[in-house]
This record gives sequence, C-alpha cells and structure tokens, in this order.
Amino acid sequence: MTMKLYELAGADASCRFSQHCWRVRLVLHHKGLAWESVPWRFTEKDAIAFAGTQKVPVLVDGDQVVHDSWTIVQYLEDTYPDTPSVFGDRVARAEAAFFRHWTERVVQAGMAPMIIHPIYERLHEKDKSYFRETREKRFGRSLEEVARESEDRLPAFRESLAPLRATVEQQSFVAGETPMIPDYLLYAAFLWVRHGSGMELLEEGDPVAAWRQRMDEATRGA
Amino acid sequence: MTMKLYELAGADASCRFSQHCWRVRLVLHHKGLAWESVPWRFTEKDAIAFAGTQKVPVLVDGDQVVHDSWTIVQYLEDTYPDTPSVFGDRVARAEAAFFRHWTERVVQAGMAPMIIHPIYERLHEKDKSYFRETREKRFGRSLEEVARESEDRLPAFRESLAPLRATVEQQSFVAGETPMIPDYLLYAAFLWVRHGSGMELLEEGDPVAAWRQRMDEATRGA
Repeated sequence: MTMKLYELAGADASCRFSQHCWRVRLVLHHKGLAWESVPWRFTEKDAIAFAGTQKVPVLVDGDQVVHDSWTIVQYLEDTYPDTPSVFGDRVARAEAAFFRHWTERVVQAGMAPMIIHPIYERLHEKDKSYFRETREKRFGRSLEEVARESEDRLPAFRESLAPLRATVEQQSFVAGETPMIPDYLLYAAFLWVRHGSGMELLEEGDPVAAWRQRMDEATRGA
Repeated sequence: MTMKLYELAGADASCRFSQHCWRVRLVLHHKGLAWESVPWRFTEKDAIAFAGTQKVPVLVDGDQVVHDSWTIVQYLEDTYPDTPSVFGDRVARAEAAFFRHWTERVVQAGMAPMIIHPIYERLHEKDKSYFRETREKRFGRSLEEVARESEDRLPAFRESLAPLRATVEQQSFVAGETPMIPDYLLYAAFLWVRHGSGMELLEEGDPVAAWRQRMDEATRGA
C-alpha cells in the first residue's frame, strides 16, 4: 500500500509551503519511496485526529501512523534500511540534531517574520482567521506590523547564514559531494520561502543561492 | 620522534589560551598521540619562520611541518588512520566544515570582544603592544572601549548558542554518546575563554555548561 503524506496546502491545493512537510518529501525522494499526497488545511483538525496530533505532516504507512517531521524522518530511516541513508552514520546522525536546531532557531526564525504575511495571502479563505489569530499571538503584533519591519530584518538574516555560506563556498553540499539531511533541512526552509511567499531573501551572487540551485537540481521531482 | 606543537603562551609560559592550539591538543589527546609543547609568543615570528607562517599552531612531525589548526586536524586524521577517528565517516567529515564555521563566525566572534581585554592582561610584556595594535585595528577601537561594551553583549551571545543548547539538552555530545570534532571545536572556544580570561559567560544551569563539564571529564589530561 502506498504511503500517504498529509501536507499543508494554500488556497490553491497544489501550493505546498510547509517546510516541515518539505522535509519529509525530500527524504522520501532521497529514498526513492512511493507515496501520495493528501492536501490538508490548518482548520481541518478532524481529518488528522486519528494521528493524535493537530499538525501536519502526518505519514500513514500501512498500519503505522507517524507525525512530527523529525520523527517521520527517523521512522523512514529506520524502517527502510535498504534505501539510501539520509544520515550517513552514527556520528552524522547525532550531528544532524544540531542542524535541525540551527535551521529552526536561526534560519527559520529569521525567515518567519519576513514571509508570514505573504503566506497569509496564499491561504485558503477558511484558514485565514485561524492563521492570523495563532500567528499574531506568537509574534505579539499584527501580521501587517510584522510585515512592515520585514525589510529591516534582511541584513541580519543574510548575516546569520555566514556559517552555511562559508561551508558551501568550499564544498558542493553541507554533507559533501551529495546532499544529505543537513542539506534537506536547510533547503526545506528555503522552499518554505519560495512556495509560501515567492520572495527572494538572498543577494545575487550569494554562494548560498548557488547551493540552493544545486539543491534544486539534486532534488528535481521531489 | 615525538611531535612538537608550537602553542601560544601568556606571560606565564604555562598559560595556554589559543583556541586554535586547543583544537589540535584535543585531537592529539583523542588520538592518544605523543607530543610535546613548545611555548611561543606573538612576537616570536622568527621561531616559526621555518613553517612558512606567522601564526601558531605549528606542528612538527618528523620531517613534516604543518600549520593552520584545521589543516593540522586533517593531517592527523589522514596520517594516523589506526588511531580513533575524530570525524567518523565521510559525511560527518564534510559536515564538520559547518561546525568549524559556526564556531568561528558565531561562537568565537561573540566571545572575542568580551575576553579580548582580559587576554591582553595575561600576555607576556613583549607581546602587549603587538596585540593591542593588531586587535585594535581589527575592532576599530581601543581594547578598553571594546571591554566596556562587553556586558551588553552577553545576552546576545547566550542567545546565539540556542542551537547548541537544544542539541546538548537531548544528547550528551554534539556527536552523540562520545565527543568528536564538532565538540572539540566548540569546547576549544570555551577553553579560550577559560584560559584567556577566567570569565564565566554562561548562566548557572545552562545545558551548555553541563555539556562543557562533560567535555572537561571526557578530555581530562588533554
């Protein structure tokens, strides 16, 4: 039975911007596993209640139901040992925890205020008030106020990518010659920006943009 | 013939604070290799001219002379394949590049202004004017001015450690159950603070402090 992945969608059901869903999708692609997508929207809590969560991604693999993107990635790695590993070895897997936290606490945290309003505009009508309410509570101010400060945030965001920039100036991918989980985690965050906002947060000529393009090529069809 | 490591020293020849020298020392310890230390001071350029560099660490291993801490680490890994690896595997080795850049551009860059004046005070008299001149040029103001802004920098520095903190809250070391190169790179930066300034930059109860203590224990005798 083909795996099912519940993924966050915008008003346009083909608009996929959730970076956490992208993480899973990129790993499924890396492993060459067959799966089908189930579009889901923020307010459709009932549709995933069976998984014991209120958030996607949710993966249904036969009688296994797994939620939380990081748990799903590890589930796929452990359940399909004959597919290409996304971790490499024991050490690289442990270190991946750091990349996850760096992605979330630095990269994603830097992107979020800049793309939050464009994402809002792409949501299905029925999701908008839910999204506004939960996100304004998180930011402590209106989405429009957050958007207005956006431009001021760009230099600090670009500067925060310095360690990634220095790495991919010297090698093709964070994991070396081919992408592995650190690349996927970071790339998923950039796909969130692309599919959620269409914004370009990088300067022309930034080595991070060149790495992102290599990721585009390496994951074509994901 | 025992390897010789030229290491930066303070006024007290036993005062070792260079984090780049600590990197090498920690890796030598990890590998169980025998070596001896040659104390060196900033202005003793002539003593290391044979290595084609003006900076330590310089490693002399038989007829091999290697400089630059990152180059030395890779030299030791490749030259002594029968000793315990500090990288793990191909992927973890590639990813180590990121840890190096994160350590240098975030952790070390955050620490430097706070400890620069205490380090100055520990230097040998003959090094002081060299150090003041080169560092004031780098910071664009006097060491005393840099020191005065120090306290203001502490909250942002602590916040910048968030990805490390989240990682070592969940596992003993960045590399998992035992320390490997990412831990050594980061720990070397903390040893720089300890031996160069005696300052405590972490709050009591910070999981990063608990990790540092585990590193103290894991590297005892380094």
